[in-house]
This record gives sequence, C-alpha cells and structure tokens, in this order.
Amino acid sequence: MSTGKADHLTHVDATGAARMVDVADKAPSSRTATASGRVRVSPRVVELLRGTSPDGRTLPKGDALAVARIAGIMGAKRTPDLIPLCHPIALHGVTVELTVADDAVEISATARTADRTGVEMEALTAVTTAALTIVDMVKAVDPVAEICSVRVESKTGGKSGDWHRGADGSVVRETSGTAETSGTAETSGTAGASGTAGGEAERSAS
Amino acid sequence: MSTGKADHLTHVDATGAARMVDVADKAPSSRTATASGRVRVSPRVVELLRGTSPDGRTLPKGDALAVARIAGIMGAKRTPDLIPLCHPIALHGVTVELTVADDAVEISATARTADRTGVEMEALTAVTTAALTIVDMVKAVDPVAEICSVRVESKTGGKSGDWHRGADGSVVRETSGTAETSGTAETSGTAGASGTAGGEAERSAS
Amino acid sequence: MSTGKADHLTHVDATGAARMVDVADKAPSSRTATASGRVRVSPRVVELLRGTSPDGRTLPKGDALAVARIAGIMGAKRTPDLIPLCHPIALHGVTVELTVADDAVEISATARTADRTGVEMEALTAVTTAALTIVDMVKAVDPVAEICSVRVESKTGGKSGDWHRGADGSVVRETSGTAETSGTAETSGTAGASGTAGGEAERSAS
Amino acid sequence: MSTGKADHLTHVDATGAARMVDVADKAPSSRTATASGRVRVSPRVVELLRGTSPDGRTLPKGDALAVARIAGIMGAKRTPDLIPLCHPIALHGVTVELTVADDAVEISATARTADRTGVEMEALTAVTTAALTIVDMVKAVDPVAEICSVRVESKTGGKSGDWHRGADGSVVRETSGTAETSGTAETSGTAGASGTAGGEAERSAS
Amino acid sequence: MSTGKADHLTHVDATGAARMVDVADKAPSSRTATASGRVRVSPRVVELLRGTSPDGRTLPKGDALAVARIAGIMGAKRTPDLIPLCHPIALHGVTVELTVADDAVEISATARTADRTGVEMEALTAVTTAALTIVDMVKAVDPVAEICSVRVESKTGGKSGDWHRGADGSVVRETSGTAETSGTAETSGTAGASGTAGGEAERSAS
Amino acid sequence: MSTGKADHLTHVDATGAARMVDVADKAPSSRTATASGRVRVSPRVVELLRGTSPDGRTLPKGDALAVARIAGIMGAKRTPDLIPLCHPIALHGVTVELTVADDAVEISATARTADRTGVEMEALTAVTTAALTIVDMVKAVDPVAEICSVRVESKTGGKSGDWHRGADGSVVRETSGTAETSGTAETSGTAGASGTAGGEAERSAS
Repeated sequence: MSTGKADHLTHVDATGAARMVDVADKAPSSRTATASGRVRVSPRVVELLRGTSPDGRTLPKGDALAVARIAGIMGAKRTPDLIPLCHPIALHGVTVELTVADDAVEISATARTADRTGVEMEALTAVTTAALTIVDMVKAVDPVAEICSVRVESKTGGKSGDWHRGADGSVVRETSGTAETSGTAETSGTAGASGTAGGEAERSAS
Repeated sequence: MSTGKADHLTHVDATGAARMVDVADKAPSSRTATASGRVRVSPRVVELLRGTSPDGRTLPKGDALAVARIAGIMGAKRTPDLIPLCHPIALHGVTVELTVADDAVEISATARTADRTGVEMEALTAVTTAALTIVDMVKAVDPVAEICSVRVESKTGGKSGDWHRGADGSVVRETSGTAETSGTAETSGTAGASGTAGGEAERSAS
Repeated sequence: MSTGKADHLTHVDATGAARMVDVADKAPSSRTATASGRVRVSPRVVELLRGTSPDGRTLPKGDALAVARIAGIMGAKRTPDLIPLCHPIALHGVTVELTVADDAVEISATARTADRTGVEMEALTAVTTAALTIVDMVKAVDPVAEICSVRVESKTGGKSGDWHRGADGSVVRETSGTAETSGTAETSGTAGASGTAGGEAERSAS
Repeated sequence: MSTGKADHLTHVDATGAARMVDVADKAPSSRTATASGRVRVSPRVVELLRGTSPDGRTLPKGDALAVARIAGIMGAKRTPDLIPLCHPIALHGVTVELTVADDAVEISATARTADRTGVEMEALTAVTTAALTIVDMVKAVDPVAEICSVRVESKTGGKSGDWHRGADGSVVRETSGTAETSGTAETSGTAGASGTAGGEAERSAS
Repeated sequence: MSTGKADHLTHVDATGAARMVDVADKAPSSRTATASGRVRVSPRVVELLRGTSPDGRTLPKGDALAVARIAGIMGAKRTPDLIPLCHPIALHGVTVELTVADDAVEISATARTADRTGVEMEALTAVTTAALTIVDMVKAVDPVAEICSVRVESKTGGKSGDWHRGADGSVVRETSGTAETSGTAETSGTAGASGTAGGEAERSAS
Repeated sequence: MSTGKADHLTHVDATGAARMVDVADKAPSSRTATASGRVRVSPRVVELLRGTSPDGRTLPKGDALAVARIAGIMGAKRTPDLIPLCHPIALHGVTVELTVADDAVEISATARTADRTGVEMEALTAVTTAALTIVDMVKAVDPVAEICSVRVESKTGGKSGDWHRGADGSVVRETSGTAETSGTAETSGTAGASGTAGGEAERSAS
C-alpha cells in the first residue's frame, strides 16, 4: 500500500516473540511528530486553572500549567524507559502547549529528532505525562477528571512520509516536497468509503 | 462538602508555588484504586491482536498483550518519577487487564498499597503506559490509534472514603462499612441536577 | 560527644569497603531537614528572572523559576538513585523556594519523612538540582554562573536531635523538647574556641 | 556580541513557556567542558579522607573518594533525567578528579561528546553529584560541610567557541585555532570595566 | 509442604496473566538475604586486579573493585526498576564483598529490610550488577570472562522461614528460633543422592 | 597483539582512578554482540514453564517467558544506568530468546548498534536481567535456582574485529570480510597451547 502501512505487528517476530526491531540500517533523518490530547475537567477546575472565580476575584493558579508542561517535556525523555520496545533516540527538541478550554485542558506536544526512528511515541508520552500531571493536581477538586483523545496529529520525515490526521480521523498524506493539499490528498480511508476502507475512517464517526 | 473534595489546587501553595504536599502526619492505611481506559484501533488491529484473520486463519499475536500488561505494571512503579508532585509510595500490588473489544483494546488496572496516600495516579499511570505500549505496537498498522476514556473507576481507603464512578460519570460514595448501595448513594452531581450540580454530571452527557 | 557526631566515616567498614549502612533496627520517626544554596548570576540574568529591564519594560520571565522549583522537587525523589550509599526512603513532603536577590538566585528546600533515616541528602539534592537547572537556563546569558553555599541549615528528628546552623557556621543544638533558645545553645564549636573545637567554627571565618 | 552570548532566556519562548530548544539543525561536533567545585569540610574529615591521624597513625579511608568519583561519572549520565530542559546526548567520556586539600575536597570533572549541544551541564552535574556524595559520607562527622564554587572552568567546541574562566571570574576567549593567548584575550567583562560591562567581572571580586 | 514452597508460578494468575502479587496484607518484618556469584577471569586479569605482576612489580589496580562494589549496591536499589513484577521496598542495608580468587572474582551480597517481601532479588541483583561491572572492566583483557553460580545462599525472616543452601545445593531449613542444626534439617533434596547428581537433580524430588 | 586485546584495565587511569574512557574519536560503525546464559531450575519449574504436567494436563504457563523476554529487552536499555563506566549508546535493536531445556531456561540475547562502542554489555545485561526475572518468578517453587554461564558468544564490528567463542571457551577470530573459517581461525588461546597462551583456553577445561 502506498501509505507505507504495515499489515502485521512489527514488534513481534514470526513466532510471536516481542523484540526491539533492528533499525541500524535506517538512515538518520530529520523527523517531527505532533500529538494532542485533552483532560476533561469540571467547571471549578477550569476556574482554578484560569485564575478567575465566578465573582471575578483572582485565584492563585500559580505553577499548575508549568508543572504539567515540564512533566510533559521530561516524560518525552523517558519514553524508552516506559515503552518496552521503543528505541532510545536522540531527542532534539520538545514543546508542550496547554490551553484551558471551557471543559478541558487541551494539550499539544511536538517532538523533533534527526535519528533513525520516528518520534510519535515521544510526542504521545509527552501528552499523556502532562495529562496525568493535570489529573494529579486537580483530583482533589475533580476526582473523575478524564484523559481522552490522545493521538498523533501529524508526522514528518521517515520512510512513511509526511501525513496529518484529517478532520474525519483519517490519514491525509502530504504531496511530496510541497505543502499540504487537501484537494488531492490520498486518504487511507474516508467517511463515505466502502466497507473495506479501513478502520480509521470508520472510527471517525465515533 | 461531605465527599471530602477540596475546592482549591492542593499542589500549589498560597503564592502559587508547586510543592509536594506534606503527608507525614497521615496514617498509613489500606487503599486501592482502579482505573480504566481504551485504545481505539482499526479492525485490522483487532484481528491481529485476536490472532484470527477474516478467513479464519490463525495469526501470530504472540506477546503483544503481555508486553502491554507488563509495561503497565512497570509504569505504575515509575509514577513518582513521572508525575512531579506525586509521593514515592510502597506499591503493594498491581494488576493490569487487557481485553480486545471489537473496536478497541480495553484496559483496566488496579493498584494497592498500605501507605499514606491514595494510588489513583499509580492506577492511571499503569493504564496510560499500557495504552501507549499498545499504540507503539500497532502504529505501523494503524497510525491514528487513539487513547481515550482514561479515568479512575473506583477507590477505597483514605480520608475521602470509598467511591466509584457512576454510569453518568458522577462520584457515587459507598455507605460506610458495607457494600455499595446505589439507591441511597450520595452523588456529587447527577445528570438531572440543577445548574449548580458540578462538572462531573455535566460531563456525563458527553 | 553529646552532639551525636561520629568520628569516623560510617559509610566504609573496617576494611575501607563502601556499604549501605544497615538501618533496619532504627525506629521510623518524624524528621525534617532544610538546606539552602545560591546561584550567583550576572545583573542581566537578575533582570530577566525578575521580568524587568533597566528601562522599566516587562520581560517574559515565564516558567523559569517554576522549572527550577519542580526540578528541585523531582531531584529530591531521585536522591537514592544519585548518591550511591543513600537509602531509598518514603519522602513525605518537599518544598523548594527560590528568591531572586540582586546578585544571585537564593534557594531553600525542606524535605520531610517519617522513616528511619534523615532527609538532609534529599534537601541538599533538591537544592543542587534546582541550582543546576537555573544554571542551565541562564548559561547562554551568563556562562560563568556559579553555585555556592549549598549546605544544611537545620534538621529535626532522629537520634542526633534537632539543630540549626548558627550564623558563624557552627552547629547549634536545640534544647530538648522545646523551642530553639539561642542563649543557652550548645554549640559544637565557636569562633573563639580553643584549637580542639572542631572544623565548623574554624570554617565560619571563611 | 562577539562572545556568542544570548541576552534572553533561551529556554522559555515568547510567551514564557518552558521548552526543550530544538537543536536538530545544529551539526554534531567535538565538544568538551570542564567544571570544578569544592566541598568545605572540617579538619577531622580531611584527616579521615587522607587516611592519616594527627599522631601519624593510618586510618582506613578506603573507598570514600572512589565512591564520589563513580557517583560523579554516573551523575553525568543522569543529567537529562535531572535537568528538565537538557537534551539527552551521546556522552563520550567523563573523568572526575578529587583532591583532598587542607580545608576541602576539590573536585574537577571533564565531559566530552561529539554531539549537537555542549556538555557544561554534564560536567557540572558530575561535580555536584560527587560533592553531594562526599557530603553524605562525611555528614556524620561534619554535619555542616558545604558545597561551593561549582562552575564551568572551560569549554571547547560549538558555535560559541572555546573559552576559559579567567582568574577574575570573567570569560576569556581563546583565539581561533591556536592556543590561549591571554594578552589579546577578549574578555566579556573586566574588573575595571565601566558599569555596563556585565556581571561576570563584577562577581570576580567576591 | 512444610517448607512454604509453592507448586505453581505465583506471578501469573489463573489465566496466565502476569501480575504484581498483592502483599498489602503481609506484615512488615525483619528480613535478610545473602546471594553469591563468580566471574571467571583469565590469569592476567587476576594479576591486574591483585595489583601484582608475575615478576613481582606492583600494578595500578586502583578503583576496579570499588567500582564493582558500588555498582552492586546501587544495582540493589534498582531492582524494582529492572525486574517487572518485583515490589518496590524499603531497602535498609546492602553490603557487597568481592574477593579475587585464583581464577575468578567471587562476589557476595547481603540485603536487609523490614518490609513485606523478601530481599532475595535485591541481593541477586547486587551480585549480577557487580559481576557485569567486573566483566565491563576486564573485557578488553579477557573478552570471554563468564558470570556463573549466581544464587541465593541464605535467607532469614518472612513466612517461609530461615534457610541456607546446603553444600549439595539443597535447601536446609533452620530450626525455629535457634541456630542451624544440620542433623535434623529438612532438606528439600537429600544428601544421600548419588555423587554425580548435583543439587539441581536433588531438587527434582521437591 | 593481533587480537586487539589490551593488557591493562582500560577503565582506570595511570593513578588507578576510574573513568569513562573517551570514545569521541572513534568512528561510529555497525556492531553486534550476542550473549547467552542459563538459569538452572528444578524439574517442577520446567513443567510449569512448558505448561505440561507429568500426567499430561496443560498448565497455565501464561506470560512467564514473555515477562523475562521483555525484562531482558528493557534491561539492555538500562545498561549505562547500571554499569558505572559504560557509555550511553544508541541501541538499534535487541532480541532475547528463551528456551526451556530439561534442566534450565536457556537465554540468548543479541544487541545491535551503529555507534562508537561495542554492545557486549548491552547483550550481557539483557541476559542477566531476563535471568533474574526468571528467578523471581520461579523462586517460590525453586528457591535455589541458579544463574550460570553468562558470557559473550560472538561479536561483530569495531576495531577488535569479529570473533566468536569457540567450543573450548577460546576466542576464535573470523577471517576478514568473509564467513567464519574454523580451519584457519586464529585462536587467542587453545587448550594445548604453551604457557603464554592466555586464560581463555585454560578456563576451557573447567
């Protein structure tokens, strides 16, 4: 398939044994990945994180978002310690952005490298670590805060090429060497596609 | 409020500075927490993880679920390394269960301790680490796999008492010393409650 | 000696071999330690950390002090990973305070436990990790920033009793069971003491 | 400015958010950094570490300095785990030297790499970890031992060029491609410079 | 069976899923474990580690054994990070002894705790980490150095009672509360087995 | 010597001080190392790990071997954290194979890199970590399980060239650029060699 997708689990061999896939023969190249996620929180938590109470008083939100941001950056560095089959890589840059929406803290993280493997897992680990840190800080106020929608939003570099997640949850590939062109995008699945289209599109309805 | 919920961010002091809250004066006691989450994956991934192809052939699913289960257990032990303001605690037991549903891998983790703080974060970290590990193993097949619905399901022990998450996303407290009684449960918010009810119930509709 | 000081290196045995001293027979008890230190920085760094330029404009100091504070808290948790002969302990609380003085960032950290060993090393590791983090963030502006005066300021609990560091660098013991009384303090050495007094006082002149 | 110094905090973005700066576009090159520091200790500690008592008897100093040296080397490897915004790098060599002076243990550490970022933080972390380890081993004898004068002494490689710390605490740049020439050194500040000269020189008087 | 031995794998549940066994209900108690092992090395390595050459000259053996001893102590602290289903415990003391024999470096490690689980794994991890460190330091001289005979030698405390490994590799239980009595020892394999059998075979009877 | 073997301990300098050897000037190149080891276990453990009882019933062996395999892979990544003087390297692939023999679990691990140093220690650490994990899981059934025969089996790449361990425990070098040729192999020592041959061969008799 042109999207470079595999159709088997690459982390287990023919006998089913887990392995760290050999990437020694892959050439180092510039790669980025952006992931996002949300922590759904109660209105009171939103007030506290924004530092404003309903009556207009200022609350001491202080370091809370900084703690989550730093946890996310440090979490990205711990990725190969946490994910058993992930390669240790040279992580060349990490940014984590947090936005307090009306019902959630929205998190976006971008990881960069010039190494042999992609950095999707580093970006995702940054998001989940930041999200867990938010939950830790707000759980005394909102014990049922929920982490959701953690996923890769876009990726550049590497053999599989550049792509971003479309609005319908499908993989939209970038045309080679130029900017993204939604009109001619090859999608690996679309909402209206036939039943064989693939799981991405089907999941987009949920 | 009777549920023992705080109305401010306990992890920052009056000036907003982050701190690891002093728990030295809290008595050690038996505590458990159960968290859950899902990784939404494509139908092809479900086939591969179940080890059955559409034509009935057996596929080598091998270690995949075991890798995620072990990653979850080990992740629970790394919680204080990852979450900046979490206390290092004596973790006395961790179980992680993975179930392959038709559109997702469902994860449930339970952590146990007899220490001074709750183990919600350990249970949640087990779930997210297992979930990230699933994503890592399936991302070559399904690059847009998504982690969702990561949350505490129930908790026992500690000052705030026992509670579980109700079907509507609200906190349902257990009556003291006996089994759960849904009829007389004090909920901190319900779907039909008035506008002041709180965020938990409101979120339950989403 | 009444101050409970040893006169040999407790971390090596009679043959000189390093060991982690056995503390299994020590009773858990409430303990605290406070340490402090400074990072001497250039005036430009002070401006940047205070967020004010000479002409009165506001500068984006942002997360800088929060990053150092969180690094200090997390560093305290890593103490037994870093210091070879330190015991892993149940760390029950950590606070780190940073103050931007005219020529330095002043750091103070307090660690708390109810375990078998003191927490001086945890407090000191919090200070040095926060200090290193400051140096990392300012080194592009001030490459010769210097960490100095990292030391224990006071300690409570444990067999050696409560003490604080006197203005002259000596150990001032607290009278048993009550508040600190400077007038009747037993010092383990004073500036004017005879030659046998001990190193603390002698160092106080430097 | 010709010294390659920045005039803002590079680790926070325009909004003040902390980030791991992207270095993917920097070319790998050979780099070294040497840092130093001191642990001021009592005369009794000096005797114990030198293995000689006042009456000439030999004391079992044993592994003490080896423990600190190894802790320093291992600490250098933990730098990106400890310093939130530090990049994980390929550390190609670390040496740590300890000298027992009359009132202190003097520490010097050199780190080497052929990677994209400098290794000042690795050298500094080696020094502080060795220093903390000394404090841990002597604290039963000298509870007020103090870590001081931890700083970068010299650096080679990278965009900012080679420099060493001058006797007055200023940055003395090496002339390009040849040995150090003190006569023509560009200092980034001197003791007699006008008020705008910069903090390094001003600190040199302390 | 009276020796407290299980006859199934306790770390997997009835469905075969790995788990960290719940020990919250076990009472903390004083426990020790001693493990041993050997690194077989060439005669040249023995000379170098002893610091004597065949012609009687002194060689600079330096820190080598100290490095291994410290690695062993630090390794014991990392046990729950390395062994997936091990509980994090309060490690109260660790000693590691190294002896240079004529054809090997002999290693013995003792770990102590007053916690809920035994410390065999901590003692064994100390031995293997010290052994790996020896191999690392001698591998340029002897590339085929071999780690062998790593095993628990004795254990005290806990539900299974005190025991030591007999000369024939069997488990010799201590009589309750008193010293070891070989005459009435219950062995899990018997001393009268045939000469070639070896301890493992004898264990086959258990 | 043609085998590239050193005759001194490279990890200590002329004064005996431990150091992380500088490898910055070594060129990155493709390297592999394979190590092996065994855990001798009782027949009952063999039954449990094979999932068959003497009467032919199936036992729930479950995740046991997968846990050890994953622990081995993750252990390889922790090598520089555990072995004090090991360089952190880019680990490009790790496989761990476990075979249940009649009296032991046999372990083989291969590590791959394209970096500046060999990966023998990573392969050996994978083996010992997998072996420790086996011991942890079977110790309730067989408390005297023993780790033995942990050693490098073969190595490719790097200055010292390719070699494998011969049946007699000696180093057998590969002829340059082609497959292994046992007939013309240069051995660094053979069982019948003269007294200067080296320790490998001598050990082969044991």
